[in-house]
This record gives sequence, C-alpha cells and structure tokens, in this order.
Amino acid sequence: QEILKHVRALAAAAKADASGGPSSSNALSLSDLALPSACREVVDKDAAAVLDEVEAAVYAAARSVLRGAGFSFDVPSRAKGNQLYVPQLDRIVLKDSMSARPFASTATCRKSVITARILGLVHELCRKRIHVTKRDLFYTDVKLFEDQTHSDAVLDDVACMLGCTRSSLHVVASEKGVVVGRLQFREDGDAIDCSRMGVGGKAIPPNVDRVTEIRSDALFILLVEKDAAFMRLAEDRFYAQYPCIIITAKGQPDVASRLFLRKLRDELKIPVLALVDSDPYGLKILSVREREMFFFSPTTFFLFNFFDPHLFQKKIKKFNSSLSLSLSQVYMKGSMNMSYDSSNLTTPDIKWLGVRPSDLDRFNIPQQCRLPMTDDDVKTGKRLMEEDFIKANPEWVKELEIMTSTKVKAEIQALSSFGFQYLSQVYLPLKLQQGGWI
Amino acid sequence: QEILKHVRALAAAAKADASGGPSSSNALSLSDLALPSACREVVDKDAAAVLDEVEAAVYAAARSVLRGAGFSFDVPSRAKGNQLYVPQLDRIVLKDSMSARPFASTATCRKSVITARILGLVHELCRKRIHVTKRDLFYTDVKLFEDQTHSDAVLDDVACMLGCTRSSLHVVASEKGVVVGRLQFREDGDAIDCSRMGVGGKAIPPNVDRVTEIRSDALFILLVEKDAAFMRLAEDRFYAQYPCIIITAKGQPDVASRLFLRKLRDELKIPVLALVDSDPYGLKILSVREREMFFFSPTTFFLFNFFDPHLFQKKIKKFNSSLSLSLSQVYMKGSMNMSYDSSNLTTPDIKWLGVRPSDLDRFNIPQQCRLPMTDDDVKTGKRLMEEDFIKANPEWVKELEIMTSTKVKAEIQALSSFGFQYLSQVYLPLKLQQGGWI
Repeated sequence: QEILKHVRALAAAAKADASGGPSSSNALSLSDLALPSACREVVDKDAAAVLDEVEAAVYAAARSVLRGAGFSFDVPSRAKGNQLYVPQLDRIVLKDSMSARPFASTATCRKSVITARILGLVHELCRKRIHVTKRDLFYTDVKLFEDQTHSDAVLDDVACMLGCTRSSLHVVASEKGVVVGRLQFREDGDAIDCSRMGVGGKAIPPNVDRVTEIRSDALFILLVEKDAAFMRLAEDRFYAQYPCIIITAKGQPDVASRLFLRKLRDELKIPVLALVDSDPYGLKILSVREREMFFFSPTTFFLFNFFDPHLFQKKIKKFNSSLSLSLSQVYMKGSMNMSYDSSNLTTPDIKWLGVRPSDLDRFNIPQQCRLPMTDDDVKTGKRLMEEDFIKANPEWVKELEIMTSTKVKAEIQALSSFGFQYLSQVYLPLKLQQGGWI
Repeated sequence: QEILKHVRALAAAAKADASGGPSSSNALSLSDLALPSACREVVDKDAAAVLDEVEAAVYAAARSVLRGAGFSFDVPSRAKGNQLYVPQLDRIVLKDSMSARPFASTATCRKSVITARILGLVHELCRKRIHVTKRDLFYTDVKLFEDQTHSDAVLDDVACMLGCTRSSLHVVASEKGVVVGRLQFREDGDAIDCSRMGVGGKAIPPNVDRVTEIRSDALFILLVEKDAAFMRLAEDRFYAQYPCIIITAKGQPDVASRLFLRKLRDELKIPVLALVDSDPYGLKILSVREREMFFFSPTTFFLFNFFDPHLFQKKIKKFNSSLSLSLSQVYMKGSMNMSYDSSNLTTPDIKWLGVRPSDLDRFNIPQQCRLPMTDDDVKTGKRLMEEDFIKANPEWVKELEIMTSTKVKAEIQALSSFGFQYLSQVYLPLKLQQGGWI
C-alpha cells in the first residue's frame, strides 16, 4: 500500500544498518575501539556457561587459599573512578579495576557468606534449568539473608563477577507485558502464533531465554504505553492491515518486556515505533532507560560445600585451562547510574511516533482533552532536555520545548474524542503514511 | 493416580451439584422463592439485547413526553430501604422501587444529560461490536463529563437501568490476569490451547464475551495469588501431571480475571482451589468479593439525537410489544455495599487449599520465614471473622483464629525454604492427596 511507503523505507534502513558490518554503529563493540584501558562487559550466557563461571569463581577462591592469601572473591569495582564514558558507543563502561573481597574482615564477613550462598543457589538453578524470582531466592535462606535487599544486592554483584546478565543466572522478573500481531516463535517447545491470540494477546514470558525460532513478516514493532490503546489495536486487529507486532508493558516497562523487545529487535532487525502519552512520564517510557543504583563492597568467604562437591571435583581440571578469564567486558549504559545489564534492557533507536506535543495542534485535539502540566511535570520535562540521548535528537528537543512552553500534556486516549476507533483507523495510518516519527 | 482420589471426588460433587436441578443451591434463583415484593437482577446480555434495552429506555422517555409528563428516565433506586437480604441465596437484592429522573430539575439536569449521552455511546459500542475502557468513554466528551467520576457513575446507573452487566455494555476493564493449563477455547475466532502456551501463559482477554467453545479435561481450577508461584507451576508444567487450569490475577484480582474465572467455573462445573498467602490480605483475594460504592440520584433529559434517528424510527414499532419490561431483576451481592453485577464477579464455593495458617506448623515452615502481623493485619483478620461468608464455614473461622492468635503470617514463597520446587513437587501434591482444602 501507498500508506506503508515510509515504513518500508525505515524497515529497509534498519535491516541495512544491522547488516552493515563493523562500520555501522550497531556492530561497533568495545574491541573495535582502541581504548586506553581494558574494559568489562556483561553478556547473555547459557546455563552451561554460567555453571562454568560459578565453578571458576570458586576455584579461583580455592587457589587463593592454597597460595596462602586467604579465601577471596575478585569483584569488579563500580566506583565512579572505574567508570568510562565511550562516546562512540554512547555508553558508560567499567574499566578493569577489581576489588578483592576477603573473608577476614569483620566489615564484609557477612556479605561474603551471602555471596557464596548466592553462587551456590545460582549453580543449582542453572543445573536444574529452572527460573525463580528474587523473592524465591530470598526465601531459600531467610536466616542468612535477613532482608531481601541483601540477597538482591549480592545477586547483582554475582552477575557482575560472572560477567553475565541477571537473566542468565535464571533469576527473572515477573511478567507484565502482552504481545499480539505478526509474530511466531517457540516458547519452551510450544509453537506460539501471536497473530492467532484472540484479542487478549500472549503474555510475555518471564524467562526470555525460553523463546526461540522467532519469525515474523512485520515491518515494525509498535510499542504501546497504555493498556487501553493496546486493547483497541488488538480488537481491531490493526496488525492484519499494517504488518506489525504490538507490545505493551502496561505503564512503566518491566524487565521481562524490555528483554523481550530487545530480543525481537535484535533478531528481526525491524524498527520500533513508540505510541506514548504526550507527557514527560510517557517520554521516559519511550527512552526505556534504567535508573538503578547498585551497592558494591568487597568481601570474601571460604565455603566449598555450596554446590555438589562431586561435580566440582569432576570439573576442576577443565578450569585449569579457562582460568584466563576474558577481561574485555563492557558495561553498557543507558544513564549515568550504573546498571550492569542495561545493554540488554535498553533498545536503541526507538522512534517516537506519537502522541507528540506538536500532534495536539496538528490533529486539533480539543482543549478539554489537554491536561495542564504540574510544576513537577514541567521540571521533569526540562530535566529530560538536559539528557544526552535527548539532545542527540534535535527533533525530540523541539517537541519537548513545545511541551514545556505550552505546559500542556495529553493521554493517548485523548484521540477518542474523535471516535473510539480514530486511533486505529485514522491517527496511526496517517502517522505511518506521513512517516511521522522522529 | 492415588493422589488425585480426593480431587476426583470433589470434582464429581461439583458436577453433581451443578446438574442437581432446582433443588441444588446453585440452581436457586429469585423466581423460585416466594418473596414479598418483586425484585430486580442484572444479567449478561448480548449486543442485540442491549441495543433493544437502550432503545426501549429512550422510547419510554418519549412516551413520557407525549403524555405531557416531561422527559424522564426511570432508574432503579439503590437506597438502603430498597435493599433486601435473601438468606436462601446469600445475596442482597434490590426491591422494585424506581426513581423518576426528570430533566426539569436544576439539581439533576446535568446528570440527566450525561445519562442520555452514555446511553448513546453504549448504543454505538454495541452497534459496532467494539469494546472500550471507562477512560475511553470519558474522553469522547470531556466537555460534558468534566470529570471521569461523573461518566463512571452514570455508566453504572445505565447498567442498572438496562438490567445488564457492565461488560454487556461493551465497557471493559483492562486485563491483568494470565491462564495456563488444560484448557482450550476460541477467542474472537482464534483457537487457543492453554496447554501449549509455553511458560508465560495466555493473557486473559478484557472482553470475556469473545471467549467461546470452552473445553477442558481438568479436574480443578487452581487460583494462584502470586505471580511467582504461577511462574513456578507454569515452568514445571504442573498441569501435565495434575489435570488443572492455573489462573493468576497477580495480586488483587481485576474484573476481567474474575469474569473469566466465573465463566470457566459455570461452563466446566469444576471446583476452584485457591493458593494464597497466609495473611488477611490473601484471604480477601480468596473471597473474591467486591466492596464498591455506587452513586445514584434521579435525573431526566430529553435528547433524541443521541443515536442514529433512522435506526430509531425503524425499531420503534418493535418496542410497542416489548414495553412490559420484566421486573424480576435481582441484584446479587457479595457484601453489604451494593455492586450491581457482583453476581458475575463473584465465584461461589472457592476452596481454600493453602497456604493455611495451620500449614505453617504442619509443614514446619522455619520461624524466619514467618512474618509478624501488624496491628492492622490483626484487625483485618478479626474483621474478616465477623463476615457472614466466613462464619458460614467453621473451618475458615478456625484458621483465622490460629492466624490472629499466633499473630504470624506467611507468603506462598515461604515454601521455597525447602527448595525451589517444593511447592510444585511436594506441597501441592500432598495437599491434593490429603484433600487439604476447606
């Protein structure tokens, strides 16, 4: 159709970009850059690789004991001085400074025990190939962990140590998102066809590593902020006429939905268009960037019986060869606060399709449907304009300037003032036809 | 299997109860009772029936004008004096007192305009066979409604007037629940097999009337409060070994999940077993009872152009015959506060499988995994013991007494202290084998 001309061009560009070899920005990795110091990165690893890493970590601790240095885990430092902004990647990475975590310290003794216990639990999860939540992990040893924040923090430490993402550790977030549209995949062996999921759609699984064989003839992914808008598009089967995959995380996106979106984009190499409220909160969802803080402090502990000793004996030889751990590990970043697997959570190049502040006048949204921004809203909007990822896109800055100067925001549902199906039958087709994303 | 003996007996009893004819408590309806006054009920109606009701309401208003009485809608009164508790049904119903809602009253003029507008919008929804949320409805005429509470309240009035449930009006709540297990159905024409939905499950659709051809070989429905427990059971494919349907609404159940559960139970006639936290909040979820207040005040307005005038002309003759509206309309109830379609939201006879306060000692849940109850928790627990539906079940009272005297609560996840898969491989099989529900 004529309507899809611009979308086709965008999709083609996304595919070309992805296959453009090392010169394209997507393919750039730390090893391509001549950086002054070695850097670390976390990556997705399969269960076998995580088992190897856990065992390597314990073996390293054992070697430390044998050479008379006492039991100690080596943990990457997250201190400000160990962070490095890499403009070519638009990310902050961690330099290669490590902290020893000795058990022989009253300040860190407890934390080191927890580290060993968490390593053991992760080993069990990966051996059994099952997934649990952070809460489940906490309840396995309440006496030791005392408070869930303690086990959560060390879990993040362990992901850093092992150089893999938290979902690789088989600890997952609970699901919240839904998907519908031109998408087929296998989930834990079951064939799933998201174009035949009725009006309710398919729940996005909490463990994205069970999703395989992703296939789709969609031209784009439509990321929808509001559940009501998702419902409208699903019931009208918007994807039947406009080949797309529709995803919602129902408000602030959860980890499972973000991992799923990232996986779809990486495998299908199609653009992501976002339909969000025209307010600073909506924009934050669009940017899909994590703002999390992590605690990190060095500790150590000697504890061998935290996983099957026989298994450990069998594997111990294997590790003699793999002890030279790769140190080219990068920490990819979305914001100034460190998030150890933000690389997998962040989907780059999301296009802002609507509802844009300039749409309010362009589509004559009635005054009654525009909401006055609070002082906090305006402040949030102005703070957003200071962010690098916004500044990098002059058109986003322009839209934010309109928003903060008119001091007016609007919800996606404001489009209902022209009729219930205006969104699916008029607004979105028009935006797609005009290439109205920025 | 031997394990399923008690479950089979329970399932057989549920089936027998359902087919037991008018003498069984399930089949009892208002018309079976010789009540001193006529009563009203709301029921599920299809789109055509709702269209008829809307047009009948407008025609009645027109007749009022023609006989010189001015435009007026007749609205059922919800005042305390019009409520009647029917012990045989364990429900509160509305007696037949109606209020006229005249336009010629400055106090109610605005509300009457809103009533007419909502009737028109509902007519449009049913004609187009599409579903929207309350928020969408509000945005169609912000100038008139001013505030969403105004359109929401009148929407409830209209459901009362037309004698049908809110979901019959094609105004639905957003979905939150997920289902997995031995269940097949059609959703908007698509064949859905919930036993082949991977580990993430199928999102429960917001519009339950699109769900048809429900089939299942399950012996019971397992209603799970917590998302994490649902995840565990889905990943372990608990339903493969123990024939069941597993549903979660992720915390406080939403309307869509409750309608879906009710529909499953009514069509499949199998028992519902609940797996909830052992705390007063979990128990409230188990009881699945609505505690909502509705505003009701009489108004009227003359407004003919709120739906297609031609369609109205065509249909007007038909209504001459159907003007004698049935007045045997009951309002079924779950609590003392009126909820006009609580009959469809409430699933009776949910069995409390676990985690029961007495389980904590029976299964030796470690002291560290038991949480102290706050004063508010204890108060909530004691208030629950005063509720009629709790008092009707002495075993529930006993459990609540244990809870409020030990002042200890526990989460489902506390079972993880015996291992991640203790829930699916030990606790639930044992509870099922022992018939450990009350």
